[in-house]
Amino acid sequence: MSTHQLNLTADAVSLTRQLVDIESVSLQEQEIADAVEHALRGLGHLEVARHGNNVVARTHLGRAERVVIAGHLDTVPVNDNLPSRLADGVLHGLGSCDMKGGDAVLLRIAATLAEPNRDLTFILYEAEEIAAEHNGLRRLAESHPELLAADFAILMEPSNASIEAGCQGTMRVEVRTTGERAHTARAWRGVNAIHKAGPVLRRLEDYVPRRPVIDGLEYHEGLNAVAIRGGIAGNVLPDECVVEVNFRFAPDRSEAAAADFVREFFEGYDVTVTDSAPGALPGLDLPAAKAFADLVGGEVNPKFGWTDVARFSALGIPAVNFGPGDPMLAHKQEEHVPVEHIERCEQVLTKWLTA
Amino acid sequence: MSTHQLNLTADAVSLTRQLVDIESVSLQEQEIADAVEHALRGLGHLEVARHGNNVVARTHLGRAERVVIAGHLDTVPVNDNLPSRLADGVLHGLGSCDMKGGDAVLLRIAATLAEPNRDLTFILYEAEEIAAEHNGLRRLAESHPELLAADFAILMEPSNASIEAGCQGTMRVEVRTTGERAHTARAWRGVNAIHKAGPVLRRLEDYVPRRPVIDGLEYHEGLNAVAIRGGIAGNVLPDECVVEVNFRFAPDRSEAAAADFVREFFEGYDVTVTDSAPGALPGLDLPAAKAFADLVGGEVNPKFGWTDVARFSALGIPAVNFGPGDPMLAHKQEEHVPVEHIERCEQVLTKWLTA
Repeated sequence: MSTHQLNLTADAVSLTRQLVDIESVSLQEQEIADAVEHALRGLGHLEVARHGNNVVARTHLGRAERVVIAGHLDTVPVNDNLPSRLADGVLHGLGSCDMKGGDAVLLRIAATLAEPNRDLTFILYEAEEIAAEHNGLRRLAESHPELLAADFAILMEPSNASIEAGCQGTMRVEVRTTGERAHTARAWRGVNAIHKAGPVLRRLEDYVPRRPVIDGLEYHEGLNAVAIRGGIAGNVLPDECVVEVNFRFAPDRSEAAAADFVREFFEGYDVTVTDSAPGALPGLDLPAAKAFADLVGGEVNPKFGWTDVARFSALGIPAVNFGPGDPMLAHKQEEHVPVEHIERCEQVLTKWLTA
Repeated sequence: MSTHQLNLTADAVSLTRQLVDIESVSLQEQEIADAVEHALRGLGHLEVARHGNNVVARTHLGRAERVVIAGHLDTVPVNDNLPSRLADGVLHGLGSCDMKGGDAVLLRIAATLAEPNRDLTFILYEAEEIAAEHNGLRRLAESHPELLAADFAILMEPSNASIEAGCQGTMRVEVRTTGERAHTARAWRGVNAIHKAGPVLRRLEDYVPRRPVIDGLEYHEGLNAVAIRGGIAGNVLPDECVVEVNFRFAPDRSEAAAADFVREFFEGYDVTVTDSAPGALPGLDLPAAKAFADLVGGEVNPKFGWTDVARFSALGIPAVNFGPGDPMLAHKQEEHVPVEHIERCEQVLTKWLTA
């Protein structure tokens, strides 16, 4: 298969369409990564590295600051929403919102600013939409951490072309009740573990989310059962019931503090943490972030969902989400992105990097 | 494979061992059915019919009453508990309790009483331990109801060699809660269906079983969650939760009345009846049953579990459980039957049928 020829001299909206029309469901990113690598190498002013289907392109201008601009190349599965379609100032199609509009802005910045006022590291990576073990940014951070070194990072995840700062952490725990099996015809000889899960659900129902304000942003925690299972057979009292709970926690809690909270919340029950990812503080008090936020202007919002900004935070790099598209449309069949979002993001970044 | 030669002149305990040592897990009853059919035909004084792996043998003496004596030939799966082992007056092995001890007594009565005081119908049937669609007694009742005609029926299910009368009905229902999906990072945009199941479990926890006395026997109802399921993904608020509930109801309720009770109990929730089998009234006021109970003497107990006596009840035939073995040992790896139970059952039936 010959490499797609991306036209980086086209406007960002046309470039978004080109990217959308290269199908790139998670783990099938080779074609789009080839196209991106080829286009970036063609520019001539960037040092380009390829690891797996991750492409990293850097300037080396000796500037005082280095900024990462990053976007993932993969999409969720096709859902009868290809190819792209442009109508009434809105571009429709799989990945248009999450997040090829952002990728196009990134590529336009790479193509048009040969001498930005800050050194730039462009990262286009694979497998963000699936299990963390595949995540290209995570893999790069492990195998080539030097490629991620920077003073500030902008992740072009959809955020309505405004800044969403930080992100909440996420943790999954299993809350387990146990009982004693018996034939249901003689239920008084056993203990029903499913009935014992009633008070667990009651606590969840009565839960009042904390909404802390951090760097002026109001976060919103959440504690939810995401699965429940129990049962042996239609005539047997079940001796185990497991409630799987997802805790979304504001970035002022560490993972350890989040685990403490959940254990205390479910005191009296057997609680096992099965999965955990830290949040990211908005970091708006850091100079690089503050300067960018001042220039973008408008309202800065908290990021509720977990995003890869947390990976930069974990490396000590302040990071924000700033990309075209409404995050509520991500993963929906009808996902789309307003042309004006794409244009605004390109304008803001160009202004910031040439001021 | 040659037919096993059952020795019906052996005592009932030896005969039980012979039956236990013919493996007959549900749907694999051909070998044991062949052996039983061959042995009963060999007696000469019975009219023998074979349908599938069900064997029916009848006397035709023109007596005033006809009594069915029935037992199933199948067992639950082998669990490292074959062959049989006799030690200290107890016979161990798969099916020893449920219910080849009873089958052996049945065969001994068939072999030793050529001219009983009541006409007898011996039924040995397949597939009692699995889904009702396979049940041999159910199939016979549908295809050859004339073979089941009788004034009274004795089912040789384990009941500690005493009478357990009637049986409770059983019904399964699904109680469903619904919600609205949302990303757990923005849980306030959805409704968690699992949380809404909390009050369902609370009602089950608070349930107080009814214990009605019928014909002098105290039954004991039960309402239990036997399964619960819900969940879409680890980051999605679930929009459905299903609690599967098993209602065991005393035989003074019809299936319709039982369904009404459950619907009222879960008022406000979506309730679907998925499975139902009626109970059987003890019928101890009926002359044939009363005469048998008087002769057996001792305490008559209610049957809590559902058994095939309900099939006879549905045909208008009073029926009781009366067999060797402790029903609590049924389906257990260590199932066993006391020799004295087997002997007592044979003695009681012999006395009753020759008095």
